[in-house]
Amino acid sequence: MSQFNRDHKWVYLFAEGNGRMKELLGGKGAGVAEMTQAGIPVPPGFTITTEACNAYYAYDRQFPEGMWTQSNLALRSVEAETGKHFGDPANPLLVSVRSGSAISMPGMMDTVLNLGLNDETVEGLAQLTGDRRFALDAYRRFISMFGHIVMGVEGEKFDRVLSRVKARTPGGQDTDLTEADLSEVIESYKRIIFAERHGEEFPQNPHDQLRMAISAVFDSWMGRRAVDYRRIHRIADDLGTAVNVQAMVFGNLGWDSGTGVAFTRNPSTGEAILYGEYLLNAQGEDVVAGIRTPKAIATLAEELPDVAVQLQEIVHRLERHYRDMQDTEFTIERGKLWMLQTRNGKRTGAAAVRTAVEMVAEGLIDEDTAILRVEPTQLDQLLHPMVDPNAEVTVLTTGLPASPGAAAGVVVFDPDEGEQLAQRADATPYILVREETSPDDFHGMVGAQAVLTARGGMTSHAAVVARGMGKACVVGAGDIEIDEDQGIFTVGEVKVRKGDWLTVDGSTGQVLLGQAPTIEPVLDHNFETLMGWADARRRLRVRANADNGPDAEVARNFGAEGIGLCRTEHMFFGEERLAAMRQMILAEGRGERERALEKLLPLQRQDFLEIFHAMEGLPVTIRLLDPPLHEFLPNRDDLMAEITELRFTIMQRAESMAHVAQLMEQIWQKESLLRQADRLREANPMLGHRGCRLGLVYPEVTEMQVRALFEAACTVKGEGLAVTPEIMVPLVSTPEELRHQGELIRRVAEEVMGAYGLRVDYTVGTMIELPRAALLADKIAQHADFFSFGTNDLTQTTLGMSRDDSARFLSHYILHKVMPDDPFQVLDQEGVGQLLEIGTQRGRATNPKLKVGICGEHGGEPRSIAFCDGIGMDYVSCSPFRVPLARLAAAQVTLRGSATMAE
Amino acid sequence: MSQFNRDHKWVYLFAEGNGRMKELLGGKGAGVAEMTQAGIPVPPGFTITTEACNAYYAYDRQFPEGMWTQSNLALRSVEAETGKHFGDPANPLLVSVRSGSAISMPGMMDTVLNLGLNDETVEGLAQLTGDRRFALDAYRRFISMFGHIVMGVEGEKFDRVLSRVKARTPGGQDTDLTEADLSEVIESYKRIIFAERHGEEFPQNPHDQLRMAISAVFDSWMGRRAVDYRRIHRIADDLGTAVNVQAMVFGNLGWDSGTGVAFTRNPSTGEAILYGEYLLNAQGEDVVAGIRTPKAIATLAEELPDVAVQLQEIVHRLERHYRDMQDTEFTIERGKLWMLQTRNGKRTGAAAVRTAVEMVAEGLIDEDTAILRVEPTQLDQLLHPMVDPNAEVTVLTTGLPASPGAAAGVVVFDPDEGEQLAQRADATPYILVREETSPDDFHGMVGAQAVLTARGGMTSHAAVVARGMGKACVVGAGDIEIDEDQGIFTVGEVKVRKGDWLTVDGSTGQVLLGQAPTIEPVLDHNFETLMGWADARRRLRVRANADNGPDAEVARNFGAEGIGLCRTEHMFFGEERLAAMRQMILAEGRGERERALEKLLPLQRQDFLEIFHAMEGLPVTIRLLDPPLHEFLPNRDDLMAEITELRFTIMQRAESMAHVAQLMEQIWQKESLLRQADRLREANPMLGHRGCRLGLVYPEVTEMQVRALFEAACTVKGEGLAVTPEIMVPLVSTPEELRHQGELIRRVAEEVMGAYGLRVDYTVGTMIELPRAALLADKIAQHADFFSFGTNDLTQTTLGMSRDDSARFLSHYILHKVMPDDPFQVLDQEGVGQLLEIGTQRGRATNPKLKVGICGEHGGEPRSIAFCDGIGMDYVSCSPFRVPLARLAAAQVTLRGSATMAE
Repeated sequence: MSQFNRDHKWVYLFAEGNGRMKELLGGKGAGVAEMTQAGIPVPPGFTITTEACNAYYAYDRQFPEGMWTQSNLALRSVEAETGKHFGDPANPLLVSVRSGSAISMPGMMDTVLNLGLNDETVEGLAQLTGDRRFALDAYRRFISMFGHIVMGVEGEKFDRVLSRVKARTPGGQDTDLTEADLSEVIESYKRIIFAERHGEEFPQNPHDQLRMAISAVFDSWMGRRAVDYRRIHRIADDLGTAVNVQAMVFGNLGWDSGTGVAFTRNPSTGEAILYGEYLLNAQGEDVVAGIRTPKAIATLAEELPDVAVQLQEIVHRLERHYRDMQDTEFTIERGKLWMLQTRNGKRTGAAAVRTAVEMVAEGLIDEDTAILRVEPTQLDQLLHPMVDPNAEVTVLTTGLPASPGAAAGVVVFDPDEGEQLAQRADATPYILVREETSPDDFHGMVGAQAVLTARGGMTSHAAVVARGMGKACVVGAGDIEIDEDQGIFTVGEVKVRKGDWLTVDGSTGQVLLGQAPTIEPVLDHNFETLMGWADARRRLRVRANADNGPDAEVARNFGAEGIGLCRTEHMFFGEERLAAMRQMILAEGRGERERALEKLLPLQRQDFLEIFHAMEGLPVTIRLLDPPLHEFLPNRDDLMAEITELRFTIMQRAESMAHVAQLMEQIWQKESLLRQADRLREANPMLGHRGCRLGLVYPEVTEMQVRALFEAACTVKGEGLAVTPEIMVPLVSTPEELRHQGELIRRVAEEVMGAYGLRVDYTVGTMIELPRAALLADKIAQHADFFSFGTNDLTQTTLGMSRDDSARFLSHYILHKVMPDDPFQVLDQEGVGQLLEIGTQRGRATNPKLKVGICGEHGGEPRSIAFCDGIGMDYVSCSPFRVPLARLAAAQVTLRGSATMAE
Repeated sequence: MSQFNRDHKWVYLFAEGNGRMKELLGGKGAGVAEMTQAGIPVPPGFTITTEACNAYYAYDRQFPEGMWTQSNLALRSVEAETGKHFGDPANPLLVSVRSGSAISMPGMMDTVLNLGLNDETVEGLAQLTGDRRFALDAYRRFISMFGHIVMGVEGEKFDRVLSRVKARTPGGQDTDLTEADLSEVIESYKRIIFAERHGEEFPQNPHDQLRMAISAVFDSWMGRRAVDYRRIHRIADDLGTAVNVQAMVFGNLGWDSGTGVAFTRNPSTGEAILYGEYLLNAQGEDVVAGIRTPKAIATLAEELPDVAVQLQEIVHRLERHYRDMQDTEFTIERGKLWMLQTRNGKRTGAAAVRTAVEMVAEGLIDEDTAILRVEPTQLDQLLHPMVDPNAEVTVLTTGLPASPGAAAGVVVFDPDEGEQLAQRADATPYILVREETSPDDFHGMVGAQAVLTARGGMTSHAAVVARGMGKACVVGAGDIEIDEDQGIFTVGEVKVRKGDWLTVDGSTGQVLLGQAPTIEPVLDHNFETLMGWADARRRLRVRANADNGPDAEVARNFGAEGIGLCRTEHMFFGEERLAAMRQMILAEGRGERERALEKLLPLQRQDFLEIFHAMEGLPVTIRLLDPPLHEFLPNRDDLMAEITELRFTIMQRAESMAHVAQLMEQIWQKESLLRQADRLREANPMLGHRGCRLGLVYPEVTEMQVRALFEAACTVKGEGLAVTPEIMVPLVSTPEELRHQGELIRRVAEEVMGAYGLRVDYTVGTMIELPRAALLADKIAQHADFFSFGTNDLTQTTLGMSRDDSARFLSHYILHKVMPDDPFQVLDQEGVGQLLEIGTQRGRATNPKLKVGICGEHGGEPRSIAFCDGIGMDYVSCSPFRVPLARLAAAQVTLRGSATMAE
């Protein structure tokens, strides 16, 4: 801190700062300075800089030299402007003291009001306002606030005194307190402080009060809650907080006074009308406390028409000044309007879109700015139903918000039951509740309104599949204890039975009892307009991950420019298919295997037909069979339980020898299946016999898939429609794998096209999802038309972290800043990103025409999308419901990129 | 092939070539050319080049232009030298035709002898030799050989005729055949060929015979067996084979003729005396056929003393010429010695070492050459017992030779039983036979003589652990079916019971019935001498992976210069320790966990003490706890079986309500354990909560380990001994992990050293075993004193291949050349190697003092060692029994490196 000489400027009058000095003055300080500069009526004051805060810590919690002197000088300037004097019993200046860092942060000291009051000035205030009761009331509020916030006395101790005194009054309300009551309260408060602070008096000297309050603000920067908050939100510790000292104005000096908040537009809908609420004859804290119900801002025109006009005019000016919707706080003191704060208003996704688009129409901002105004993740809200914010709901528990949207249904534990329910004519909507889900449960997820799991993280099976289907999903609701046998789950004392109604809000993670009312999303012309602007600007193409016709249609409606990942294995989980699949897996030789594959071929062909129809004219990337085969076999524990059950039956309830024989036969069959399952069981299936390793060992599987694919493609082409399949070979680690599968694909393609007498344009490429594939990309690219980075698996292998297992330590890691983000949600640019860059560069080095994209979960995450754009990828592919988000994010990175270049 | 003009030289007389032309003339051709050049008596002949073979294929199986003419010219030159003429009925020249590529390769055409015989020349041969029976016999041999090898007639058809005719003779032997019998055989042979070749006659024209034989040699290059062989051994297809045409000499022209093989030294022991065997009055094929028993070469001095002296002199010249032990073939024709072939002799490890060292003493080679003469992998033979090669054994089955050495013992299936057996005073040696092993079985492996598993590959748990302990091990013996309940295993029809004797040969993979005699290894002065030379030359240091005192001692005796990897988890598998470990894992909170850790601390300290004592003065790298915790919990299936068993007991055999209650209590406890195990169960444990992730979430575990380590180190230091611990943090993926653990380690180290009032030099480093760690090595190195590449895990993650699961497809991959080697045995230089290089370079970039080594299985594999040296690592660490191999391999890479630089 030796860089500061004794004349260093630690203190800025509001009139000396401006809105761009956020880092030095904090958000609040910069805001009031900017308003002051713009001629908006703001109670005068000054800001002690964040630099001073850092110096305070550097000097072992001492004010840096000159700061206190400058602060007193600034105070004199405020005195001059208000004509009042700090500590003057005749005409006392009262101030508020507020913290304010560059980033708004709960956990720091909020506000001390009415600072400057003491036993003498309180009387001056009484005279000045002609309202002694008001002055005493302000004094007792100040003492308790100061005692609690600055001197660290438990707030409850003051509350108890107040409650006791109020209880004696006829009405029992604050307003029933007499001046005598208040004086008694004040004396009690002082005694509490004296006792709690072991003999330290409540300071009567206003300058002591101010000095202590400033220290308290600085100290709160390193308070436990503030530090925790910064840790979680990864905010640097040396940002520091500023201190704002501002002349008090009073909204509680009668019915021509008041206080309120005003938004320049409706933050829920974006509608361009003044929005907000106020209370007359009240201070800010009264609004927060909720003792009186505030009135809608429209009413102000009736109650104080002049002020209403003035307010309308000021906030309008503020909005034009900041060119963004403003969230303001104001106080009316005896008919005079004072603005206390203005900041860009938080808004819903719908409001963000509408505001941005309308501001372009109003000439306030240009289209580029409009695009940058909307947080891509906010679009999620627009695309899914939400719980009516006005509804009364009972929150049962909260898990992780894994897939946005809200849905209600009856509780079902068994996926089979769910499937049956969905197939009934009067299909009751249901919520599938599971410990966690596996591919086995897929059929039960398809028909569900939403999925709720007790375990798993944001990228668990349930989460990924639900997001893919755009279905609401809450995972990892750890409070839930499921007893499937009893058909019940409990949260603490609350029991929820199978068939009970439940509402799941995948946007917030909340699980609500009963059937909460939901609001359907509306994609209006504002949304379309904004997306149009975004599309015109982005370089990166956006595709969707979709495995079937309906999903593909959704994706196309959301603006997907193709399918970037169609997982063929999801097609095998239907009942009929699963049987054929199991026959294929358990086949003893190639002949038997081929017979099983023959059953699967027409089913698979039908799947492809639907997708090709849905995506007509757009490219469709189809990935060959990927998961380890044992995923298609029945669950081992289930089998063992069934065998045990059968044994019990033989022992206890066998009716005859024939019955025994029959049961023994069943046991034998199940044991045989168990042995097969055991034979296929792998210690680490993620790193096992899967991906193209299946296709190399069982080329007949690849052949069936490619045949089905080209038969479907030829059929579509025969109908006169355009079709562009891209066949993707998964889990390649060495060039020879791709060469081998590519040769097979091209041979079968020729055969089928020959048989149909047609030619279909197609390409062959690979997933880059293993570090080795990225490192050998130059060699692999010689056999590839395209690369698609499978960042889910690439993250797993690069970090050596199983997505299914990492929850156990990853939350600890993120909390303790070992890792900045969950690498399965936000691309690990530092590590995995290197491989993406290496893979892209090397691949293009040997094959300049190589098309490069990404199809992992990261394809729908804005920061990751920016990275993909930065390294020159051609496209990203994400869940259908994330497509608009990706389109917007891609446009933003283009705009930010050009901005950066312009600099 | 257009690069060849019509004058291109396709044919070389033996006198025109030399030993360096192996690629063009093949090994055999170059060998005879070199001998001819050296003035050794070699029957004259010529070689058609491998280039001609490639041209033959390029021209659609036509001889390239000029080849046939040159071949005839060369033939004429042979005629001139021998004074005989090809096809001359009066004085016929007969030739042998042999294939011979640069690399010796079974599956190609071997030899056609006596080519040039026909109905006329056979009579000329009869006159020339004065032995018509001999001539007819030669003719019938030639027709059948030619018919079979060149014309593709089934050999059996000829054999049947011969057997039939022989059966009519009085003695029933070859020698009983009369001239008439032989004529009949010859005529029958011709008819067979005519019939089988659909009217094509056996060619009477010797030039046709020669042309056809040359084509047949060329064709055999692309024969199925040859192609398969090349695929398996990764030999290029365009190497091609040469054809050697050589004048026949006859060892069967009476008792002054003969044929034999001679080694210049004993290939089993290396002793420098002529070694080999011969038969008088016989052709080479008679030796091979084994009809007569050959005599030891020493006898030749008695039977044909002049020839013996000549042979001794010639092979001595050959050895001096080649400066290596020679394996020769010779024929004596009527007292004249002809050398047919010489090549460097194959030898055992012992012979290789002795020969190399003695040749230095003899001044034949220098020390550098001696070092390069011994294949590092051959040393394995020297360090382990082997099955007496002279013993009669019954091979039950053959698996993968996972850990070398041979051992006999009784069959044991249950590790507990094995452990008990080992603890008995009269400890019967036993072989642990398992489906596959897991860390749970460790205690049963410790006492076993050898381990045999039905499943698993060269790098399965059993293989890795057995190699670490230097214990014989055969894995993946797939023929074995184990029925543990019955206490039996079967191979086909053979049943082996618990307690039966078995011998396991881990060097060959053979499993022998009964107790086969074994020979103990002797490490003689030759071995020490060679190792001394190697040590003086190598740059790379060699350490060992050892987890306990005894292993560390073995390693030190084998020349290890430190411990490169001490796995602390192996220390936790003893019974008492496992109990404390489970208590630690199942602990509900930190307090309970710490109490369990307190029990483990003294045990762990004792382990460290033993290792520090064993390695006094040398560095010891100790890795903190690494495996996922559930490895320490009981097996899930076992638990479930026990619970089921208890339920049955309740239902059927419960004696009283008290008994039921007691059983229920047991069920409850086991179910609780099962739930815990389920809670800890991971989908992919390899990528789960393990390595330093344990130490970050449970710092108290790291703390206990570090405390035990430093208490041991201080104790040793207190005894006045030198100790250098290096603490290694496993599975780091991000710098913060290492920073965190490093801080903890240093804090505890200071505490303990302070308490002892001592200072111990120590370093803190990390395993680089994840791709991300290698990519971020520059940042990680800022917190590390050393890196040790854990190439086992790094291979798993870089290739996305689980070591435990990859056997299923990896054998297919290697067979079909998708991958050149098993990447878990031979370092994947192309992929994983990149990360090793990146990690080393980046690590040293920010920390130039960084010590870098490797501690994966690859640390004991010669090619991988060469790679590690090439990228500048400081050391390799391998199993104790591989240390000598590594020392030698490291010396060889230094020598080859300087050789390369000298060029």
